[in-house]
Amino acid sequence: MQILPDEIYVDLECLESELRSQIACDDAIICEAATQLLEGGGKRLRPTLALLTSRLGDYSRERILPLAVGLELLHMATLVHDDIVDGALIRRGQATVRARWGEQVSVYVGDYLFGRSLYLFSKYQDPTIMGILSGISLEMCEGEIKQIASTFNLGESLRSYFRRIRRKTALLISASCKAGAVCTKAPALYCRAVGRYGLYLGMAFQITDDVLDVTAEESQLGKPVGSDLKEGIITLPAILALNNARQSRELEKLLLKRNKDQEEISRCIEIIKDSGAIERTLLIARRYLNKAKAYLMLLPNNQIRQSLITIADFVATRTY
Amino acid sequence: MQILPDEIYVDLECLESELRSQIACDDAIICEAATQLLEGGGKRLRPTLALLTSRLGDYSRERILPLAVGLELLHMATLVHDDIVDGALIRRGQATVRARWGEQVSVYVGDYLFGRSLYLFSKYQDPTIMGILSGISLEMCEGEIKQIASTFNLGESLRSYFRRIRRKTALLISASCKAGAVCTKAPALYCRAVGRYGLYLGMAFQITDDVLDVTAEESQLGKPVGSDLKEGIITLPAILALNNARQSRELEKLLLKRNKDQEEISRCIEIIKDSGAIERTLLIARRYLNKAKAYLMLLPNNQIRQSLITIADFVATRTY
Repeated sequence: MQILPDEIYVDLECLESELRSQIACDDAIICEAATQLLEGGGKRLRPTLALLTSRLGDYSRERILPLAVGLELLHMATLVHDDIVDGALIRRGQATVRARWGEQVSVYVGDYLFGRSLYLFSKYQDPTIMGILSGISLEMCEGEIKQIASTFNLGESLRSYFRRIRRKTALLISASCKAGAVCTKAPALYCRAVGRYGLYLGMAFQITDDVLDVTAEESQLGKPVGSDLKEGIITLPAILALNNARQSRELEKLLLKRNKDQEEISRCIEIIKDSGAIERTLLIARRYLNKAKAYLMLLPNNQIRQSLITIADFVATRTY
Repeated sequence: MQILPDEIYVDLECLESELRSQIACDDAIICEAATQLLEGGGKRLRPTLALLTSRLGDYSRERILPLAVGLELLHMATLVHDDIVDGALIRRGQATVRARWGEQVSVYVGDYLFGRSLYLFSKYQDPTIMGILSGISLEMCEGEIKQIASTFNLGESLRSYFRRIRRKTALLISASCKAGAVCTKAPALYCRAVGRYGLYLGMAFQITDDVLDVTAEESQLGKPVGSDLKEGIITLPAILALNNARQSRELEKLLLKRNKDQEEISRCIEIIKDSGAIERTLLIARRYLNKAKAYLMLLPNNQIRQSLITIADFVATRTY
């Protein structure tokens, strides 16, 4: 389904070939692992956003492409390192780098992709762009460490959940929107507006991700359902269910259990669903999306704005 | 023992306090882990080299300090990730980040330090400096992956050993020397000369490190003796011993064995020592150091040059 203007799809094709040439290196393992990551698919959400917002300024494909490529490589780097930490074996329906080559290789493949992305960003020699991107790469690390520290901690407050997903996901999506606009010297007002749009979009994106972990089918998700529950990552549906469900004592016990079996995970999911937490979680996601779209009203009423609205609507209804 | 000019020690004091302020962040775990790394000591070889070579140009402490700090943080990042990969529990006589906080935290603490270092480098907005440093950070990853791929591989040739240690160690030391000089706009001839000096110094440094893994005492080394042998990392002393020792068949068998016990490691060390491989290895290190020093002859005959010579002599005779 084509939901964006034609020229963005042309940009995205160039992105694919540039991604491929950026991961080419003379080490066979890095090359193979990175190629698998690329071919594993992914929505290319972050580069797509940057490609769109770059058109708010003095657009040129040569100018925006390295940034767009760097954003996807940075995202890929975080996936590789997250899979080490989560012990994930499957992502996007494929064996992870960790499952195929082991943790040791994954550490350095992630580092390599991370280094390549920061190198691409540095080439702009623009302190704003590098500041936006290296700053958030540090905050992302802090967010992930917070997540590790808070596993199996049912006392995690809503406040710390939102803070964590902001760092883990929303900041990079916000930075993608903002850096795209900054890169082509769009007016400061537009840069700020798309930065805020991206932040709220990113919050909603992660919240719907956390819902999908509970509600989706494995075939749609490309990884086992209930992974977060299993890992002890307490997400919004679980927090809301704990606060409200009649069976909150049972849920509490199950969530705290390490090495849950499949039946126990299914029971967690059942309790969460029965409690109405899914609907309330999606309501919160929708509120974020409305906030995101409100910021778009600061942009000129054109195809770019329309596409950014379409992306927000996609996030609200996505099933993968 | 004071082996460098007074003003370098003043610089190094500023470096310590700047390192401390750079690792301050609002995540308690990152902060604690990074502080432990800092306080664990280390020779500060890379920043020292940059501080020295920066005096070949238009020296200013404000100018060189962020680079020097970034070099040490980058080095620390690689140590944290190496310890995950090696499964190391002890470094510099202390529990590693991995041993204390686990692999998961180590992944992100390393990423954090890596990100911070590249951020510091990017602030120079100098494509040469960023090019030198992000380029080598990529090659370092390739070197580490090559090391993983070649463990327990006795067929590793001398050529691939040298290629591996060049990436793993020598390139960053070379970059430290070169970037220090580039940073203060030293003449191009001097920048190239100290870059070559650093490359050969780095080769010698890693070779003596590999010797110390076989010959040192645990108390000097700050980690168990024979770690490389245990991990299946085939270093120069082992390669030379395999080529020459009368007991090369026995050594071969032992090296290939996974999960060697202490007695088997001791036997490997004994065979390597008896074969004369240590002396031949040190001879090769000394040849690299002579090459390194030869490049210094391109510099003016002053205290900086003398200090760089002193550092080379230290590498040749170091016991830790």
